[in-house]
Amino acid sequence: MKTLEEHACFGGTQGFHEHASDTIGLPMRFGVYLPPQAARGPVPVLYYLAGLTCNEQTFAIKAGAQQHAARLGIALVTPDTSPRGTGVEGADQDWDFGHGAGFYLDATAQPYARHWRMESYVARELPQVLQRHFAVDTARAGIFGHSMGGHGALTLALRHPGRYRSVSALAPICAPSEVPWGHKAFTGYLGGHREAWSTHDAVQLVRRGARVPPLLVDQGLADTFLAAQLRPERLEEACAAAGQPLTLRRHAGYDHGYFFVASFVADHLAHHAEALAA
Amino acid sequence: MKTLEEHACFGGTQGFHEHASDTIGLPMRFGVYLPPQAARGPVPVLYYLAGLTCNEQTFAIKAGAQQHAARLGIALVTPDTSPRGTGVEGADQDWDFGHGAGFYLDATAQPYARHWRMESYVARELPQVLQRHFAVDTARAGIFGHSMGGHGALTLALRHPGRYRSVSALAPICAPSEVPWGHKAFTGYLGGHREAWSTHDAVQLVRRGARVPPLLVDQGLADTFLAAQLRPERLEEACAAAGQPLTLRRHAGYDHGYFFVASFVADHLAHHAEALAA
Repeated sequence: MKTLEEHACFGGTQGFHEHASDTIGLPMRFGVYLPPQAARGPVPVLYYLAGLTCNEQTFAIKAGAQQHAARLGIALVTPDTSPRGTGVEGADQDWDFGHGAGFYLDATAQPYARHWRMESYVARELPQVLQRHFAVDTARAGIFGHSMGGHGALTLALRHPGRYRSVSALAPICAPSEVPWGHKAFTGYLGGHREAWSTHDAVQLVRRGARVPPLLVDQGLADTFLAAQLRPERLEEACAAAGQPLTLRRHAGYDHGYFFVASFVADHLAHHAEALAA
Repeated sequence: MKTLEEHACFGGTQGFHEHASDTIGLPMRFGVYLPPQAARGPVPVLYYLAGLTCNEQTFAIKAGAQQHAARLGIALVTPDTSPRGTGVEGADQDWDFGHGAGFYLDATAQPYARHWRMESYVARELPQVLQRHFAVDTARAGIFGHSMGGHGALTLALRHPGRYRSVSALAPICAPSEVPWGHKAFTGYLGGHREAWSTHDAVQLVRRGARVPPLLVDQGLADTFLAAQLRPERLEEACAAAGQPLTLRRHAGYDHGYFFVASFVADHLAHHAEALAA
Protein backbone atom coordinates (compact mmCIF):
# COMPACT_ATOMS: atom_id res chain seq x y z
CA MET A 1 0.00 0.00 0.00
CA LYS A 2 1.23 3.44 -0.95
CA THR A 3 0.14 6.63 0.79
CA LEU A 4 -0.42 9.34 -1.82
CA GLU A 5 -1.45 12.22 0.44
CA GLU A 6 -1.85 12.84 4.15
CA HIS A 7 -3.32 15.93 5.79
CA ALA A 8 -3.92 16.83 9.42
CA CYS A 9 -7.65 17.46 9.79
CA PHE A 10 -9.70 18.15 12.94
CA GLY A 11 -7.02 16.60 15.12
CA GLY A 12 -6.89 13.42 13.03
CA THR A 13 -5.52 12.55 9.60
CA GLN A 14 -7.15 12.51 6.17
CA GLY A 15 -5.17 10.19 3.94
CA PHE A 16 -5.46 8.97 0.38
CA HIS A 17 -3.90 5.62 -0.44
CA GLU A 18 -3.35 3.24 -3.34
CA HIS A 19 -2.85 -0.51 -3.36
CA ALA A 20 -2.70 -3.35 -5.87
CA SER A 21 -6.15 -4.91 -5.58
CA ASP A 22 -6.35 -8.68 -6.12
CA THR A 23 -10.12 -8.46 -6.51
CA ILE A 24 -10.11 -5.73 -9.14
CA GLY A 25 -6.84 -6.76 -10.77
CA LEU A 26 -5.66 -3.16 -10.91
CA PRO A 27 -4.42 -0.46 -8.53
CA MET A 28 -7.26 0.97 -6.45
CA ARG A 29 -7.38 4.18 -4.44
CA PHE A 30 -9.25 4.90 -1.23
CA GLY A 31 -9.45 7.59 1.43
CA VAL A 32 -9.24 7.06 5.19
CA TYR A 33 -10.01 9.67 7.80
CA LEU A 34 -8.54 8.55 11.12
CA PRO A 35 -9.97 10.45 14.09
CA PRO A 36 -7.72 11.50 16.98
CA GLN A 37 -9.02 8.54 19.03
CA ALA A 38 -7.23 6.13 16.64
CA ALA A 39 -3.95 7.13 18.29
CA ARG A 40 -5.13 5.30 21.42
CA GLY A 41 -6.43 2.10 19.77
CA PRO A 42 -8.62 0.71 17.00
CA VAL A 43 -11.75 2.69 16.13
CA PRO A 44 -14.90 1.55 14.30
CA VAL A 45 -15.16 2.06 10.55
CA LEU A 46 -17.83 3.84 8.55
CA TYR A 47 -17.71 3.19 4.80
CA TYR A 48 -19.03 5.89 2.49
CA LEU A 49 -19.86 4.91 -1.09
CA ALA A 50 -19.93 7.78 -3.55
CA GLY A 51 -22.10 8.37 -6.58
CA LEU A 52 -21.63 8.46 -10.35
CA THR A 53 -18.52 10.36 -11.59
CA CYS A 54 -17.09 10.64 -8.07
CA ASN A 55 -13.90 9.15 -6.70
CA GLU A 56 -12.23 8.43 -3.36
CA GLN A 57 -11.65 12.16 -2.72
CA THR A 58 -15.09 13.62 -3.40
CA PHE A 59 -16.71 13.01 -0.01
CA ALA A 60 -13.52 13.83 1.90
CA ILE A 61 -13.31 17.22 0.20
CA LYS A 62 -16.96 18.23 -0.03
CA ALA A 63 -19.01 16.72 2.80
CA GLY A 64 -17.41 18.18 5.92
CA ALA A 65 -17.84 14.87 7.77
CA GLN A 66 -14.41 14.70 9.42
CA GLN A 67 -15.37 17.08 12.22
CA HIS A 68 -18.14 14.68 13.28
CA ALA A 69 -15.95 11.58 12.88
CA ALA A 70 -13.36 13.33 15.06
CA ARG A 71 -15.93 14.03 17.74
CA LEU A 72 -17.43 10.52 17.61
CA GLY A 73 -14.20 8.52 17.22
CA ILE A 74 -15.07 6.85 13.92
CA ALA A 75 -12.84 6.23 10.88
CA LEU A 76 -14.31 7.26 7.53
CA VAL A 77 -13.37 5.08 4.56
CA THR A 78 -14.07 6.22 1.02
CA PRO A 79 -13.34 3.74 -1.77
CA ASP A 80 -13.26 4.84 -5.40
CA THR A 81 -16.47 4.21 -7.39
CA SER A 82 -15.08 1.75 -9.95
CA PRO A 83 -11.92 0.24 -11.37
CA ARG A 84 -9.80 2.76 -13.27
CA GLY A 85 -7.55 2.47 -16.29
CA THR A 86 -9.06 -0.84 -17.35
CA GLY A 87 -8.38 -0.27 -21.03
CA VAL A 88 -11.89 -1.57 -21.74
CA GLU A 89 -13.22 0.10 -24.87
CA GLY A 90 -15.81 2.79 -24.19
CA ALA A 91 -15.33 2.70 -20.41
CA ASP A 92 -14.59 6.45 -20.34
CA GLN A 93 -17.32 7.34 -22.79
CA ASP A 94 -20.41 7.66 -20.54
CA TRP A 95 -20.61 9.39 -17.16
CA ASP A 96 -23.18 6.87 -15.91
CA PHE A 97 -21.49 3.63 -16.99
CA GLY A 98 -17.95 2.23 -16.97
CA HIS A 99 -15.23 4.13 -15.13
CA GLY A 100 -16.70 6.06 -12.20
CA ALA A 101 -19.88 3.98 -12.28
CA GLY A 102 -19.19 0.55 -10.77
CA PHE A 103 -22.60 0.25 -9.08
CA TYR A 104 -21.06 -1.77 -6.22
CA LEU A 105 -21.66 -5.17 -7.78
CA ASP A 106 -19.52 -7.91 -9.32
CA ALA A 107 -20.10 -7.85 -13.08
CA THR A 108 -20.84 -11.15 -14.76
CA ALA A 109 -21.09 -9.94 -18.35
CA GLN A 110 -18.13 -9.33 -20.63
CA PRO A 111 -16.00 -7.29 -21.03
CA TYR A 112 -16.65 -6.09 -17.46
CA ALA A 113 -16.42 -9.27 -15.37
CA ARG A 114 -12.65 -9.09 -14.98
CA HIS A 115 -12.29 -5.68 -13.31
CA TRP A 116 -15.76 -4.43 -12.27
CA ARG A 117 -15.97 -6.30 -8.96
CA MET A 118 -16.77 -3.49 -6.55
CA GLU A 119 -19.00 -5.59 -4.29
CA SER A 120 -16.24 -8.08 -3.46
CA TYR A 121 -13.75 -5.23 -3.26
CA VAL A 122 -15.74 -3.14 -0.77
CA ALA A 123 -17.22 -5.97 1.28
CA ARG A 124 -14.21 -8.31 1.39
CA GLU A 125 -10.82 -7.03 0.23
CA LEU A 126 -10.89 -3.45 1.46
CA PRO A 127 -11.66 -4.39 5.10
CA GLN A 128 -8.63 -6.71 5.09
CA VAL A 129 -6.40 -3.96 3.75
CA LEU A 130 -7.70 -1.57 6.39
CA GLN A 131 -7.28 -4.06 9.22
CA ARG A 132 -3.67 -4.63 8.17
CA HIS A 133 -2.59 -0.99 7.79
CA PHE A 134 -4.72 1.20 10.06
CA ALA A 135 -5.82 1.47 13.70
CA VAL A 136 -9.36 0.31 12.90
CA ASP A 137 -11.67 -2.48 14.04
CA THR A 138 -13.43 -3.62 10.87
CA ALA A 139 -15.69 -5.92 12.90
CA ARG A 140 -17.44 -2.73 14.02
CA ALA A 141 -18.53 -1.33 10.67
CA GLY A 142 -21.32 0.82 9.28
CA ILE A 143 -22.01 1.78 5.69
CA PHE A 144 -23.66 4.68 3.92
CA GLY A 145 -23.57 6.38 0.57
CA HIS A 146 -25.02 8.89 -1.86
CA SER A 147 -27.02 8.25 -5.03
CA MET A 148 -25.36 5.24 -6.76
CA GLY A 149 -23.45 4.87 -3.49
CA GLY A 150 -26.72 4.92 -1.54
CA HIS A 151 -27.81 1.99 -3.69
CA GLY A 152 -24.44 0.39 -2.91
CA ALA A 153 -24.80 0.88 0.86
CA LEU A 154 -28.34 -0.51 0.93
CA THR A 155 -27.64 -3.53 -1.29
CA LEU A 156 -24.29 -4.47 0.27
CA ALA A 157 -25.89 -4.38 3.72
CA LEU A 158 -28.93 -6.35 2.54
CA ARG A 159 -26.77 -8.93 0.74
CA HIS A 160 -24.25 -9.39 3.59
CA PRO A 161 -26.33 -9.82 6.75
CA GLY A 162 -24.47 -9.04 9.93
CA ARG A 163 -21.54 -7.39 8.20
CA TYR A 164 -22.70 -3.82 8.86
CA ARG A 165 -24.11 -2.74 12.20
CA SER A 166 -25.64 0.41 10.75
CA VAL A 167 -26.84 1.53 7.31
CA SER A 168 -28.00 4.80 5.84
CA ALA A 169 -28.26 6.60 2.53
CA LEU A 170 -28.54 10.06 1.01
CA ALA A 171 -30.67 10.29 -2.14
CA PRO A 172 -30.10 6.61 -2.99
CA ILE A 173 -31.11 4.86 -6.19
CA CYS A 174 -33.69 2.73 -4.38
CA ALA A 175 -35.11 0.61 -7.20
CA PRO A 176 -32.40 0.33 -9.88
CA SER A 177 -34.29 -2.38 -11.80
CA GLU A 178 -37.00 0.18 -12.52
CA VAL A 179 -34.99 3.26 -13.57
CA PRO A 180 -32.75 4.26 -16.52
CA TRP A 181 -29.45 4.44 -14.55
CA GLY A 182 -30.07 0.95 -13.18
CA HIS A 183 -31.25 -0.48 -16.50
CA LYS A 184 -28.11 0.70 -18.20
CA ALA A 185 -25.76 -0.54 -15.48
CA PHE A 186 -27.46 -3.89 -14.92
CA THR A 187 -27.74 -4.61 -18.65
CA GLY A 188 -24.07 -3.84 -19.13
CA TYR A 189 -22.65 -5.50 -16.02
CA LEU A 190 -25.13 -8.37 -15.51
CA GLY A 191 -26.66 -8.92 -18.95
CA GLY A 192 -30.39 -9.13 -19.65
CA HIS A 193 -31.29 -11.51 -16.79
CA ARG A 194 -33.88 -9.68 -14.70
CA GLU A 195 -33.59 -12.27 -11.96
CA ALA A 196 -29.93 -11.28 -11.48
CA TRP A 197 -30.90 -7.60 -11.43
CA SER A 198 -33.32 -8.12 -8.58
CA THR A 199 -30.54 -9.48 -6.35
CA HIS A 200 -28.86 -6.05 -6.57
CA ASP A 201 -32.02 -3.99 -6.08
CA ALA A 202 -32.72 -2.76 -2.53
CA VAL A 203 -36.50 -2.75 -3.00
CA GLN A 204 -36.51 -6.31 -4.36
CA LEU A 205 -34.16 -7.53 -1.63
CA VAL A 206 -36.35 -6.11 1.13
CA ARG A 207 -39.42 -7.67 -0.52
CA ARG A 208 -37.72 -11.05 -0.54
CA GLY A 209 -37.03 -10.95 3.14
CA ALA A 210 -33.54 -9.46 3.52
CA ARG A 211 -33.28 -7.30 6.64
CA VAL A 212 -30.90 -4.66 7.91
CA PRO A 213 -30.68 -2.52 11.06
CA PRO A 214 -33.07 0.46 11.09
CA LEU A 215 -32.46 2.57 7.99
CA LEU A 216 -32.01 6.33 7.80
CA VAL A 217 -32.59 7.82 4.33
CA ASP A 218 -32.54 11.52 3.44
CA GLN A 219 -33.93 12.84 0.17
CA GLY A 220 -34.11 16.37 -1.22
CA LEU A 221 -37.38 17.34 -2.88
CA ALA A 222 -35.71 19.67 -5.40
CA ASP A 223 -33.51 16.78 -6.58
CA THR A 224 -33.90 16.65 -10.36
CA PHE A 225 -33.28 12.89 -10.34
CA LEU A 226 -35.93 12.14 -7.71
CA ALA A 227 -38.82 10.89 -9.83
CA ALA A 228 -36.92 9.34 -12.72
CA GLN A 229 -33.95 7.68 -11.01
CA LEU A 230 -34.24 7.51 -7.21
CA ARG A 231 -37.81 6.44 -6.24
CA PRO A 232 -37.63 6.54 -2.44
CA GLU A 233 -41.39 5.84 -2.29
CA ARG A 234 -40.69 2.35 -3.64
CA LEU A 235 -38.32 1.70 -0.72
CA GLU A 236 -40.85 3.18 1.67
CA GLU A 237 -43.58 0.83 0.40
CA ALA A 238 -41.33 -2.22 0.49
CA CYS A 239 -40.08 -1.49 4.02
CA ALA A 240 -43.60 -0.81 5.30
CA ALA A 241 -44.88 -4.06 3.79
CA ALA A 242 -41.94 -6.06 5.11
CA GLY A 243 -41.66 -4.49 8.55
CA GLN A 244 -38.15 -3.21 7.82
CA PRO A 245 -37.64 -0.10 10.01
CA LEU A 246 -36.98 2.97 7.87
CA THR A 247 -36.79 6.67 8.67
CA LEU A 248 -37.22 8.46 5.33
CA ARG A 249 -36.86 12.22 5.62
CA ARG A 250 -37.91 14.45 2.73
CA HIS A 251 -36.33 17.91 2.63
CA ALA A 252 -38.00 20.75 0.74
CA GLY A 253 -35.65 22.75 -1.49
CA TYR A 254 -32.61 20.44 -1.41
CA ASP A 255 -31.09 19.15 -4.64
CA HIS A 256 -28.89 16.14 -5.44
CA GLY A 257 -25.46 17.64 -4.79
CA TYR A 258 -22.94 17.80 -1.99
CA PHE A 259 -24.44 20.92 -0.42
CA PHE A 260 -27.35 18.57 0.37
CA VAL A 261 -25.02 15.80 1.59
CA ALA A 262 -23.07 18.24 3.79
CA SER A 263 -26.30 19.62 5.30
CA PHE A 264 -27.36 16.24 6.70
CA VAL A 265 -24.11 14.32 7.13
CA ALA A 266 -23.97 15.06 10.88
CA ASP A 267 -27.25 13.19 11.39
CA HIS A 268 -25.87 10.21 9.48
CA LEU A 269 -22.71 10.05 11.54
CA ALA A 270 -24.78 10.24 14.72
CA HIS A 271 -27.00 7.42 13.42
CA HIS A 272 -23.97 5.20 12.80
CA ALA A 273 -22.14 6.20 15.98
CA GLU A 274 -25.06 4.99 18.08
CA ALA A 275 -24.81 1.50 16.57
CA LEU A 276 -21.00 1.38 16.39
CA ALA A 277 -20.40 2.43 19.98
CA ALA A 278 -22.18 -0.69 21.27
CA MET B 1 -26.64 40.13 -12.16
CA LYS B 2 -27.16 36.55 -13.25
CA THR B 3 -27.53 33.64 -10.83
CA LEU B 4 -25.57 30.67 -12.16
CA GLU B 5 -26.32 28.13 -9.42
CA GLU B 6 -28.37 27.99 -6.24
CA HIS B 7 -28.37 25.17 -3.69
CA ALA B 8 -30.22 24.74 -0.42
CA CYS B 9 -27.58 24.31 2.28
CA PHE B 10 -27.99 24.10 6.08
CA GLY B 11 -31.37 25.78 5.89
CA GLY B 12 -30.03 28.68 3.81
CA THR B 13 -28.91 29.07 0.21
CA GLN B 14 -25.47 28.77 -1.41
CA GLY B 15 -25.54 30.71 -4.66
CA PHE B 16 -23.00 31.52 -7.37
CA HIS B 17 -23.56 34.66 -9.37
CA GLU B 18 -22.08 36.67 -12.24
CA HIS B 19 -22.29 40.36 -13.02
CA ALA B 20 -20.72 42.87 -15.38
CA SER B 21 -18.14 44.61 -13.20
CA ASP B 22 -17.49 48.28 -13.93
CA THR B 23 -14.33 48.18 -11.84
CA ILE B 24 -12.80 45.16 -13.55
CA GLY B 25 -14.29 45.85 -16.98
CA LEU B 26 -15.25 42.20 -17.39
CA PRO B 27 -17.83 39.75 -16.02
CA MET B 28 -16.99 38.70 -12.46
CA ARG B 29 -18.29 35.78 -10.44
CA PHE B 30 -18.88 35.52 -6.73
CA GLY B 31 -20.53 33.18 -4.23
CA VAL B 32 -23.01 34.15 -1.53
CA TYR B 33 -24.16 31.92 1.28
CA LEU B 34 -27.32 33.36 2.79
CA PRO B 35 -28.16 31.90 6.20
CA PRO B 36 -31.78 31.11 7.14
CA GLN B 37 -31.92 34.36 9.17
CA ALA B 38 -31.71 36.36 5.92
CA ALA B 39 -35.35 35.44 5.25
CA ARG B 40 -36.31 37.70 8.18
CA GLY B 41 -34.12 40.72 7.37
CA PRO B 42 -30.62 41.86 6.41
CA VAL B 43 -27.72 39.91 7.95
CA PRO B 44 -24.07 40.96 8.37
CA VAL B 45 -21.53 40.02 5.71
CA LEU B 46 -18.28 38.11 6.05
CA TYR B 47 -16.00 38.31 3.02
CA TYR B 48 -13.63 35.41 2.39
CA LEU B 49 -10.71 35.99 0.03
CA ALA B 50 -9.24 32.82 -1.48
CA GLY B 51 -5.67 31.96 -2.39
CA LEU B 52 -3.69 31.42 -5.57
CA THR B 53 -5.40 29.25 -8.24
CA CYS B 54 -8.74 29.34 -6.39
CA ASN B 55 -12.02 30.85 -7.52
CA GLU B 56 -15.39 31.88 -6.08
CA GLN B 57 -16.40 28.26 -5.50
CA THR B 58 -13.36 26.86 -3.68
CA PHE B 59 -14.18 27.94 -0.15
CA ALA B 60 -17.90 27.23 -0.56
CA ILE B 61 -17.14 23.65 -1.60
CA LYS B 62 -14.21 22.77 0.64
CA ALA B 63 -14.32 24.68 3.92
CA GLY B 64 -17.59 23.55 5.50
CA ALA B 65 -18.27 27.07 6.78
CA GLN B 66 -21.96 27.31 5.89
CA GLN B 67 -23.07 25.32 8.95
CA HIS B 68 -21.46 27.96 11.20
CA ALA B 69 -22.80 30.88 9.15
CA ALA B 70 -26.26 29.30 9.41
CA ARG B 71 -25.96 29.05 13.19
CA LEU B 72 -24.57 32.57 13.58
CA GLY B 73 -26.74 34.36 11.03
CA ILE B 74 -23.93 35.66 8.82
CA ALA B 75 -23.74 35.82 5.01
CA LEU B 76 -20.53 34.45 3.48
CA VAL B 77 -19.32 36.21 0.34
CA THR B 78 -16.59 34.69 -1.82
CA PRO B 79 -15.30 36.77 -4.73
CA ASP B 80 -13.13 35.26 -7.43
CA THR B 81 -9.38 35.77 -7.03
CA SER B 82 -8.73 37.85 -10.17
CA PRO B 83 -10.23 39.05 -13.43
CA ARG B 84 -10.81 36.23 -15.92
CA GLY B 85 -10.66 36.06 -19.68
CA THR B 86 -8.67 39.27 -19.95
CA GLY B 87 -6.92 38.24 -23.14
CA VAL B 88 -3.69 39.58 -21.64
CA GLU B 89 -0.77 37.60 -23.02
CA GLY B 90 0.70 35.12 -20.56
CA ALA B 91 -2.04 35.65 -17.95
CA ASP B 92 -2.83 31.90 -17.92
CA GLN B 93 0.81 30.85 -17.98
CA ASP B 94 1.77 30.93 -14.27
CA TRP B 95 -0.25 29.62 -11.34
CA ASP B 96 1.07 32.39 -9.07
CA PHE B 97 0.58 35.40 -11.34
CA GLY B 98 -2.12 36.65 -13.71
CA HIS B 99 -5.48 34.87 -13.77
CA GLY B 100 -6.27 33.37 -10.35
CA ALA B 101 -3.63 35.56 -8.69
CA GLY B 102 -4.98 39.11 -8.36
CA PHE B 103 -3.35 39.77 -4.96
CA TYR B 104 -6.27 42.05 -3.96
CA LEU B 105 -4.68 45.26 -5.20
CA ASP B 106 -5.26 47.70 -8.06
CA ALA B 107 -2.47 47.21 -10.57
CA THR B 108 -0.69 50.31 -11.78
CA ALA B 109 1.71 48.69 -14.26
CA GLN B 110 0.80 47.70 -17.82
CA PRO B 111 -0.70 45.52 -19.19
CA TYR B 112 -2.46 44.81 -15.90
CA ALA B 113 -3.82 48.18 -14.82
CA ARG B 114 -7.02 47.91 -16.86
CA HIS B 115 -8.48 44.71 -15.38
CA TRP B 116 -6.49 43.73 -12.28
CA ARG B 117 -8.32 45.98 -9.82
CA MET B 118 -9.32 43.52 -7.11
CA GLU B 119 -8.92 45.97 -4.22
CA SER B 120 -11.48 48.41 -5.62
CA TYR B 121 -13.66 45.52 -6.69
CA VAL B 122 -13.76 43.83 -3.28
CA ALA B 123 -13.77 46.95 -1.10
CA ARG B 124 -16.08 49.16 -3.18
CA GLU B 125 -18.06 47.61 -6.04
CA LEU B 126 -18.94 44.21 -4.63
CA PRO B 127 -20.58 45.60 -1.45
CA GLN B 128 -22.82 47.78 -3.64
CA VAL B 129 -23.83 44.79 -5.74
CA LEU B 130 -24.58 42.79 -2.61
CA GLN B 131 -26.58 45.59 -0.98
CA ARG B 132 -28.71 45.87 -4.10
CA HIS B 133 -29.46 42.19 -4.64
CA PHE B 134 -29.32 40.36 -1.30
CA ALA B 135 -30.75 40.58 2.22
CA VAL B 136 -27.45 41.79 3.67
CA ASP B 137 -26.26 44.79 5.65
CA THR B 138 -22.85 45.61 4.20
CA ALA B 139 -22.26 48.25 6.89
CA ARG B 140 -21.73 45.28 9.22
CA ALA B 141 -18.84 43.53 7.50
CA GLY B 142 -15.92 41.34 8.43
CA ILE B 143 -13.15 39.99 6.21
CA PHE B 144 -10.89 36.97 6.25
CA GLY B 145 -8.94 34.87 3.81
CA HIS B 146 -6.38 32.16 3.15
CA SER B 147 -2.80 32.49 1.87
CA MET B 148 -2.89 35.19 -0.85
CA GLY B 149 -6.42 35.87 0.43
CA GLY B 150 -5.08 36.20 3.98
CA HIS B 151 -2.77 38.90 2.65
CA GLY B 152 -5.81 40.43 0.96
CA ALA B 153 -7.91 40.42 4.13
CA LEU B 154 -5.13 41.96 6.23
CA THR B 155 -4.17 44.64 3.73
CA LEU B 156 -7.71 45.62 2.72
CA ALA B 157 -8.64 46.02 6.39
CA LEU B 158 -5.43 47.97 7.15
CA ARG B 159 -5.89 50.22 4.09
CA HIS B 160 -9.61 50.91 4.67
CA PRO B 161 -9.96 51.82 8.34
CA GLY B 162 -13.44 51.34 9.72
CA ARG B 163 -14.71 49.36 6.76
CA TYR B 164 -14.35 45.97 8.43
CA ARG B 165 -15.41 45.36 12.01
CA SER B 166 -13.43 42.11 12.22
CA VAL B 167 -10.40 40.65 10.46
CA SER B 168 -8.71 37.26 10.46
CA ALA B 169 -6.51 35.10 8.27
CA LEU B 170 -5.48 31.50 7.70
CA ALA B 171 -1.87 30.96 6.64
CA PRO B 172 -1.63 34.49 5.18
CA ILE B 173 1.25 35.89 3.15
CA CYS B 174 2.22 38.33 5.89
CA ALA B 175 5.15 40.15 4.36
CA PRO B 176 4.74 40.00 0.57
CA SER B 177 7.53 42.53 -0.04
CA GLU B 178 9.98 40.03 1.42
CA VAL B 179 8.95 36.77 -0.30
CA PRO B 180 9.01 35.33 -3.86
CA TRP B 181 5.21 35.24 -4.38
CA GLY B 182 4.98 38.89 -3.36
CA HIS B 183 8.04 39.97 -5.35
CA LYS B 184 6.61 38.46 -8.49
CA ALA B 185 3.13 39.90 -8.00
CA PHE B 186 4.26 43.38 -6.92
CA THR B 187 6.85 43.64 -9.70
CA GLY B 188 4.23 42.66 -12.26
CA TYR B 189 1.28 44.65 -10.97
CA LEU B 190 2.99 47.65 -9.36
CA GLY B 191 6.38 47.85 -11.09
CA GLY B 192 9.71 48.14 -9.33
CA HIS B 193 8.73 50.86 -6.85
CA ARG B 194 9.37 49.43 -3.39
CA GLU B 195 7.51 52.31 -1.79
CA ALA B 196 4.34 51.23 -3.60
CA TRP B 197 4.90 47.63 -2.53
CA SER B 198 5.02 48.59 1.13
CA THR B 199 1.52 50.07 0.94
CA HIS B 200 0.21 46.58 0.13
CA ASP B 201 2.26 44.73 2.74
CA ALA B 202 0.54 43.96 6.05
CA VAL B 203 3.77 44.06 8.06
CA GLN B 204 4.77 47.43 6.59
CA LEU B 205 1.28 48.85 7.06
CA VAL B 206 1.21 47.89 10.74
CA ARG B 207 4.69 49.37 11.19
CA ARG B 208 3.53 52.65 9.71
CA GLY B 209 0.66 52.95 12.12
CA ALA B 210 -2.34 51.37 10.42
CA ARG B 211 -4.60 49.61 12.91
CA VAL B 212 -7.36 47.02 12.71
CA PRO B 213 -9.58 45.27 15.26
CA PRO B 214 -7.86 42.41 17.14
CA LEU B 215 -6.48 39.93 14.62
CA LEU B 216 -6.88 36.15 14.66
CA VAL B 217 -4.31 34.29 12.52
CA ASP B 218 -3.97 30.50 12.25
CA GLN B 219 -0.89 28.85 10.77
CA GLY B 220 -0.03 25.19 10.22
CA LEU B 221 3.51 24.17 11.12
CA ALA B 222 3.67 21.49 8.39
CA ASP B 223 2.84 24.13 5.79
CA THR B 224 5.52 23.81 3.10
CA PHE B 225 5.19 27.54 2.28
CA LEU B 226 5.64 28.71 5.85
CA ALA B 227 9.29 29.80 5.88
CA ALA B 228 9.67 30.92 2.29
CA GLN B 229 6.36 32.65 1.55
CA LEU B 230 4.21 33.28 4.64
CA ARG B 231 6.43 34.61 7.49
CA PRO B 232 3.90 34.96 10.31
CA GLU B 233 6.75 35.83 12.70
CA ARG B 234 7.19 39.10 10.81
CA LEU B 235 3.56 40.01 11.48
CA GLU B 236 3.96 38.92 15.09
CA GLU B 237 6.99 41.21 15.53
CA ALA B 238 5.32 44.15 13.82
CA CYS B 239 2.09 43.81 15.84
CA ALA B 240 4.00 43.43 19.11
CA ALA B 241 6.08 46.53 18.38
CA ALA B 242 3.05 48.56 17.31
CA GLY B 243 0.61 47.40 19.98
CA GLN B 244 -1.71 45.90 17.38
CA PRO B 245 -3.63 43.05 19.11
CA LEU B 246 -2.92 39.71 17.41
CA THR B 247 -3.72 36.13 18.35
CA LEU B 248 -1.37 33.98 16.26
CA ARG B 249 -2.00 30.26 16.70
CA ARG B 250 0.53 27.74 15.41
CA HIS B 251 -0.78 24.22 14.77
CA ALA B 252 1.58 21.26 14.68
CA GLY B 253 1.04 18.90 11.74
CA TYR B 254 -1.26 21.07 9.65
CA ASP B 255 -0.38 21.90 6.05
CA HIS B 256 -1.44 24.71 3.69
CA GLY B 257 -4.58 23.13 2.21
CA TYR B 258 -8.31 23.21 2.82
CA PHE B 259 -8.25 20.37 5.37
CA PHE B 260 -6.39 22.93 7.50
CA VAL B 261 -8.84 25.70 6.64
CA ALA B 262 -11.83 23.47 7.41
CA SER B 263 -10.33 22.42 10.75
CA PHE B 264 -10.24 25.99 12.08
CA VAL B 265 -12.96 27.80 10.16
CA ALA B 266 -15.46 27.52 13.04
CA ASP B 267 -13.15 29.57 15.26
CA HIS B 268 -12.88 32.25 12.57
CA LEU B 269 -16.63 32.52 12.15
CA ALA B 270 -17.02 32.80 15.93
CA HIS B 271 -14.34 35.54 15.98
CA HIS B 272 -16.22 37.53 13.34
CA ALA B 273 -19.69 36.86 14.76
CA GLU B 274 -18.69 38.43 18.05
CA ALA B 275 -17.78 41.70 16.31
CA LEU B 276 -20.62 41.64 13.80
CA ALA B 277 -23.40 41.01 16.30
CA ALA B 278 -22.73 44.33 18.02
